[in-house]
Amino acid sequence: MKVKEGDRVLLIDEKGKKFLVRVEKGKTLSTHYGIIELEKLIGADFGDFTYTHNKRGKFYIVEPVIPDLMMKVKRETQIIYPKDAAIIIMWLGIKEGSRVIEIGTGSGSMTIALANAVGENGKVYSYDRNEKFQKNAIKNVENAGLIDRVEFKIRQAHEGFDEKEVDAVFIDLPSPWEALDPAVVALKGGGRLGVLSPTCNQIETMSVKMKERGFIDITSFEILLRHMLPRKGMTRPLERMVSHTGYLLFGIKTSIRLPE
Amino acid sequence: MKVKEGDRVLLIDEKGKKFLVRVEKGKTLSTHYGIIELEKLIGADFGDFTYTHNKRGKFYIVEPVIPDLMMKVKRETQIIYPKDAAIIIMWLGIKEGSRVIEIGTGSGSMTIALANAVGENGKVYSYDRNEKFQKNAIKNVENAGLIDRVEFKIRQAHEGFDEKEVDAVFIDLPSPWEALDPAVVALKGGGRLGVLSPTCNQIETMSVKMKERGFIDITSFEILLRHMLPRKGMTRPLERMVSHTGYLLFGIKTSIRLPE
Amino acid sequence: MKVKEGDRVLLIDEKGKKFLVRVEKGKTLSTHYGIIELEKLIGADFGDFTYTHNKRGKFYIVEPVIPDLMMKVKRETQIIYPKDAAIIIMWLGIKEGSRVIEIGTGSGSMTIALANAVGENGKVYSYDRNEKFQKNAIKNVENAGLIDRVEFKIRQAHEGFDEKEVDAVFIDLPSPWEALDPAVVALKGGGRLGVLSPTCNQIETMSVKMKERGFIDITSFEILLRHMLPRKGMTRPLERMVSHTGYLLFGIKTSIRLPE
Amino acid sequence: MKVKEGDRVLLIDEKGKKFLVRVEKGKTLSTHYGIIELEKLIGADFGDFTYTHNKRGKFYIVEPVIPDLMMKVKRETQIIYPKDAAIIIMWLGIKEGSRVIEIGTGSGSMTIALANAVGENGKVYSYDRNEKFQKNAIKNVENAGLIDRVEFKIRQAHEGFDEKEVDAVFIDLPSPWEALDPAVVALKGGGRLGVLSPTCNQIETMSVKMKERGFIDITSFEILLRHMLPRKGMTRPLERMVSHTGYLLFGIKTSIRLPE
Repeated sequence: MKVKEGDRVLLIDEKGKKFLVRVEKGKTLSTHYGIIELEKLIGADFGDFTYTHNKRGKFYIVEPVIPDLMMKVKRETQIIYPKDAAIIIMWLGIKEGSRVIEIGTGSGSMTIALANAVGENGKVYSYDRNEKFQKNAIKNVENAGLIDRVEFKIRQAHEGFDEKEVDAVFIDLPSPWEALDPAVVALKGGGRLGVLSPTCNQIETMSVKMKERGFIDITSFEILLRHMLPRKGMTRPLERMVSHTGYLLFGIKTSIRLPE
Repeated sequence: MKVKEGDRVLLIDEKGKKFLVRVEKGKTLSTHYGIIELEKLIGADFGDFTYTHNKRGKFYIVEPVIPDLMMKVKRETQIIYPKDAAIIIMWLGIKEGSRVIEIGTGSGSMTIALANAVGENGKVYSYDRNEKFQKNAIKNVENAGLIDRVEFKIRQAHEGFDEKEVDAVFIDLPSPWEALDPAVVALKGGGRLGVLSPTCNQIETMSVKMKERGFIDITSFEILLRHMLPRKGMTRPLERMVSHTGYLLFGIKTSIRLPE
Repeated sequence: MKVKEGDRVLLIDEKGKKFLVRVEKGKTLSTHYGIIELEKLIGADFGDFTYTHNKRGKFYIVEPVIPDLMMKVKRETQIIYPKDAAIIIMWLGIKEGSRVIEIGTGSGSMTIALANAVGENGKVYSYDRNEKFQKNAIKNVENAGLIDRVEFKIRQAHEGFDEKEVDAVFIDLPSPWEALDPAVVALKGGGRLGVLSPTCNQIETMSVKMKERGFIDITSFEILLRHMLPRKGMTRPLERMVSHTGYLLFGIKTSIRLPE
Repeated sequence: MKVKEGDRVLLIDEKGKKFLVRVEKGKTLSTHYGIIELEKLIGADFGDFTYTHNKRGKFYIVEPVIPDLMMKVKRETQIIYPKDAAIIIMWLGIKEGSRVIEIGTGSGSMTIALANAVGENGKVYSYDRNEKFQKNAIKNVENAGLIDRVEFKIRQAHEGFDEKEVDAVFIDLPSPWEALDPAVVALKGGGRLGVLSPTCNQIETMSVKMKERGFIDITSFEILLRHMLPRKGMTRPLERMVSHTGYLLFGIKTSIRLPE
């Protein structure tokens, strides 16, 4: 497979440092080794390498995957990490054709993962009350090449969603319960609700409220990713790790009515 | 959304116990509460509930998601867990339309996750040398309703794969290196290789060999899923957990030639 | 070193199963292999082995260490685990000669660890409001041979302690804050307070109250012990683990006065 | 309790930063807030506070505990952490009066923990082949006020130890097996051997060799310390942690003879 104009490409140097670029004529990437004219990548084979103008830096040309796209968003908020996004997508049953509501958009890292998962015929409806953040997120999702699969809306959680019968709702808010009743209204019967929250208190409060709203199969857990350093005769875990991003919380909407 | 004949349906009792059934006329599910005639589920709303014949058991009717389908396979081997499958799929960049090789098939739990991820236009090529295991896996993938997306083949790892230019290869073998050169041949440039292995020794040996074969961005880690018990005023982690399934190992194929 | 009458001895079978016995004339240990007359252990070398009467079971004769003594207490409550006890003792600065208050006694596993650490000239004051539990604990501490170093008292936490200027206070209560003001009164200036609690909520409430009472250097963490299975060419973590016992919380008493 | 001349004292500022000092006439501590004349601490109550000369910095006066003394050693090597030291001491059964061999000394952080645990009548024999490192360690142990309980020796592991019938041996060497036969010779029957090693490979090799030498009850695990941030309504784990220091390995010497 060859690089085409407009492709998003990951350039990886020999130390493993990654640069996410869009291949356009006239654009250059500046690295600490030197400059790469991105135009000259057109027609290169993925998996091959290129050099900086001065031959001092060697860079492999690779298609980015979702973890790359997520980690490379411009951050104006705390982002959701790939490890959590992968699990959320699988636990919510999101697949090609799914219609999913996300609130809030944040910097759009989760939006990218969701948009990738719903495929060409699915849709992500991404709500946030902060216009500035969402503008940044829109640019990030555009850079990831997934903008066509997402509708962005500025809205407070408690104001409710426009969509009905969606397959899943994912909530990433400081007070996730503000989006609970709107989520119940928007979800299809048996639809899945997912929440990510950094504190014990949030998942405690939210899980109690989900139970009150008739959600079943309420489960909560956290995902820890622990790097290993495999080396000949000296394999061991890395010495430091990200030990907390957030607690995940899931439940299934049932036909039990809301308290009026 | 209503249950149709032929649907795979998850029945969840009030203690959270789950039964995966296929809705067919004349079939029944026997539970410790009593019997459910599956035919009467036809036309029910997902999210609603039903009772056993004697009204002693109440069961919610829910669409299964991939973690349900994976955990409910009939096991003739150790299975890959949803937590690992979700991460593998995201890290390998598998999405709708992807063409992926899996070796070995095992009991097919990972095959189900892969088949779900590649969508209607993608394909999973699943190899195993053990015919008996693969027969069981085929039935499991069939039960999950994903058989059309998978080609099964009986083959030893070192004999090589039939496919070329695949997007990703996933290896789950006691000696993953036996499938390394075949994987290099089958992968497209910049294609992704993933490995799951229970021991430190396997990932050590495999990562050394991957480096020799020119793979870059070699990363290894493990995923730990730790359950929380959120309760009003008494939130805490669960007292026991699955603390090890396997180490994951990933790398990207480059255009570097194989040693002859 | 040779076994003497009255010694507490650990007998370990070839599968690693451990039996804690006291060597007395006329007493026997019944195992699933057969019977061992404990009298015949007298004069045996530690590190040596003995057989059951029928030669079917082989048992190594070993001096028990604190983790053995703690895990072998007769349990009438949840016990504190050796991993937590070791950390608590070190973080509280407990050493030979220390005077320590413990509330509550529970089944006495922590009492054993504390009594070992304070040495012959130190003292543990162990309070509990439940007479039945403490009676059991007293027997457990006696069996561990450490009874001379402990004073047991039946008391509610809020009623206060008899001791002054103690080096450390360790609280293991459902409502640890009930013992907070009594702990402040009993502790010497710069003395250390330690708490073990299973839930997030308990450590949250307690740490807030400790701050209000002028405690400094307030730290909270949990200790996870993850077993490895080292085997030639196949080393890996064990598949299951105890993933939660409790959160630990520590602080140092300063001279700031109590609110009246 | 009042501060005396010569005391080791921990000064803790209002942000929790800790300074370990020895109270001597004429000495000063320079902090980023200003200067503290240590002489004026004499006669102060532990738990009380003092100010820098300019009143800009407030410092609590506290007795250091072993974790403080360990973390404050001058490091010329990787040190053993308090979390591991606490566990090693408890699992090896070290208590007042114990005689323990340590190899190697490193920077002496473990030596400090061992010296504290053996009490006034116990002894630590600490071996290292590197004179420069051991000189630094000696100074560190001196600063901790525990030098009387330790004998330091310059020696290669395979050359053997001078002591016999010791209660425990602790090995912290890149090739721990070099000290195995000397440890067997030095240990009393039923004595305990402990090893700390960073890699899977080391504990694998060592555990195999320990089994060959007749050790029983061979156990390996790692200790993870995960910090919590308890705050009113917002309690959660810290975002980063030390995820690996080393694997621990323990075994009990039996009377089985060495292969000749």
